[in-house]
Amino acid sequence: MSSNSMKMAVGQLGPIHLADSREAVVARLVSMLREAAAGGCKFIAFPELALTTFFPRYWYDDEAEVAGFYESEMPNAATQPLFDEAARLGIGFYLGYAELTPERRRFNTSVLVGPDGVIVGKYRKVHLPGHADNRPTLPFQHLEKRYFEVGDLGFPTFASQGTTFGMCICNDRRWPEAYRVLAMRGADVVALGYNTPSHNIYYEEPPHLRMFHHRLVMQSAAYQNCIWVLASAKCGAEDGFHMHGGSCIIAPSGEIVAQTSSEDDEVIQHHCDLDLGKRYRKTVFNFARHRRPEHYGLITESAGGEQVAGQQGGTEPS
Amino acid sequence: MSSNSMKMAVGQLGPIHLADSREAVVARLVSMLREAAAGGCKFIAFPELALTTFFPRYWYDDEAEVAGFYESEMPNAATQPLFDEAARLGIGFYLGYAELTPERRRFNTSVLVGPDGVIVGKYRKVHLPGHADNRPTLPFQHLEKRYFEVGDLGFPTFASQGTTFGMCICNDRRWPEAYRVLAMRGADVVALGYNTPSHNIYYEEPPHLRMFHHRLVMQSAAYQNCIWVLASAKCGAEDGFHMHGGSCIIAPSGEIVAQTSSEDDEVIQHHCDLDLGKRYRKTVFNFARHRRPEHYGLITESAGGEQVAGQQGGTEPS
Repeated sequence: MSSNSMKMAVGQLGPIHLADSREAVVARLVSMLREAAAGGCKFIAFPELALTTFFPRYWYDDEAEVAGFYESEMPNAATQPLFDEAARLGIGFYLGYAELTPERRRFNTSVLVGPDGVIVGKYRKVHLPGHADNRPTLPFQHLEKRYFEVGDLGFPTFASQGTTFGMCICNDRRWPEAYRVLAMRGADVVALGYNTPSHNIYYEEPPHLRMFHHRLVMQSAAYQNCIWVLASAKCGAEDGFHMHGGSCIIAPSGEIVAQTSSEDDEVIQHHCDLDLGKRYRKTVFNFARHRRPEHYGLITESAGGEQVAGQQGGTEPS
Repeated sequence: MSSNSMKMAVGQLGPIHLADSREAVVARLVSMLREAAAGGCKFIAFPELALTTFFPRYWYDDEAEVAGFYESEMPNAATQPLFDEAARLGIGFYLGYAELTPERRRFNTSVLVGPDGVIVGKYRKVHLPGHADNRPTLPFQHLEKRYFEVGDLGFPTFASQGTTFGMCICNDRRWPEAYRVLAMRGADVVALGYNTPSHNIYYEEPPHLRMFHHRLVMQSAAYQNCIWVLASAKCGAEDGFHMHGGSCIIAPSGEIVAQTSSEDDEVIQHHCDLDLGKRYRKTVFNFARHRRPEHYGLITESAGGEQVAGQQGGTEPS
């Protein structure tokens, strides 16, 4: 084991039902934080939208009803115990939540918190899946394009705990551009929370492909970008709506080195050798020697290029 | 099976030794072309540098010695029988070879040939692995940066046989930018030949990771870009230098649907539903709806960004 090793954890959440209070959820997060710290971990990644149910599945005619899912401050009274316990135990964490800004803007957000319990950096989800219009005939909806704006912070990285962290949220993990920008900003570790329905209700798809795709995109990204990936699910059935688990820790080799086996609150942990990505960065993925941006122009020139997307009526897994 | 289905093949090559003539290799390619056509295939992908041994493993002090590995015309006397047989049978193909231009420029090149035996398009490898300097202490060298220039054609696509083809060569498959540009140019099928040593002689790496990475990068690319990938190895031991097989056909779901089981000449084939990628393009990977190029700028601004590549002395698998 390299001397540049840090034990890190993923804290997967089971379901959060509509009736569950933030205080009850934070107590669960604190419990997992303690388990990770007791195991010697210095960092734990929690899920996307980790304080409430995955509310984008519901259409609300009344905006006042949806307002209750957002946090206008972080930390706040409900989450302060998590920040306090992190500082007491000296463990950093990643936490996803719905953010309401002072200007009443709404983002699907995550924060990186240092082992002193102080926020180091913020990320706002760029790749929002789903739709903005009401589709009441679907078994459930996916209204992220209604309830959130596209993130306006790009893909920042943050020096913390002797390494460099980046953050993604859920559907970001399917887009190679997200990890690439983070790697080019020097990321060693990418924390990534998600809420992913287990069934694709929009077109016929063998259910096993959902978990296969989830792993595939993160494993290839870890390898191609020489990074550790800490992927944390909120999963199980929230008020009857099932989301898949499969939280995992992925090495820069692309290998899954730890994975949850439940769909409930569960902590996994691993000794992460932060030097492991370096051999790839010196050789096969030495970007400066091998990348040829003069041939990549289309990637940033437009969103769609000449892709033949066919009709625009569909939607997608998150 | 969709009405928009085409049966396609991969023709993997076993070793080509230094002593083997081009005529002998072309006879092997013709034999596989016939097998594919007899099976109902309308297209077959052959490997990278399919007419000679993988000569970048050898250092030559005398440039005259290396000149014999290049083709100054395509087709030429040695390869004309392959083009003629393709036209007779009505089957298109992809073929990789070392190209010498009239201006004495040298590229690692592939051509797309239509079912009339006429070249539809050309690609020149962009992501050259290896090194340009002599490293005689290594068990073998990887001198692509010495023997080839970086491709100057970008990543073009070509309409042929009712679909849209793109091409990659070997190490290109590890770079998500290559497939992304091809997908944004409308590619439905990407043909990809390779020669990949089975052992990493530059740093300690568990040998199983070589095949794992080979599959991982192509499977994720197929899924994220909604494309079929036809990957064709030259493999086995060429004069004692072993390269891995694992030629395969990958669906837009990311699944391997056909794979070789030998390290010798071998044809695999599959009914490829060319509509399979469309459901992804309409939904999860509808680029125009979801991609956010305003946040991808670093990808085209520089080669290396702030990636900490460490010392520059290494090299890498091909």
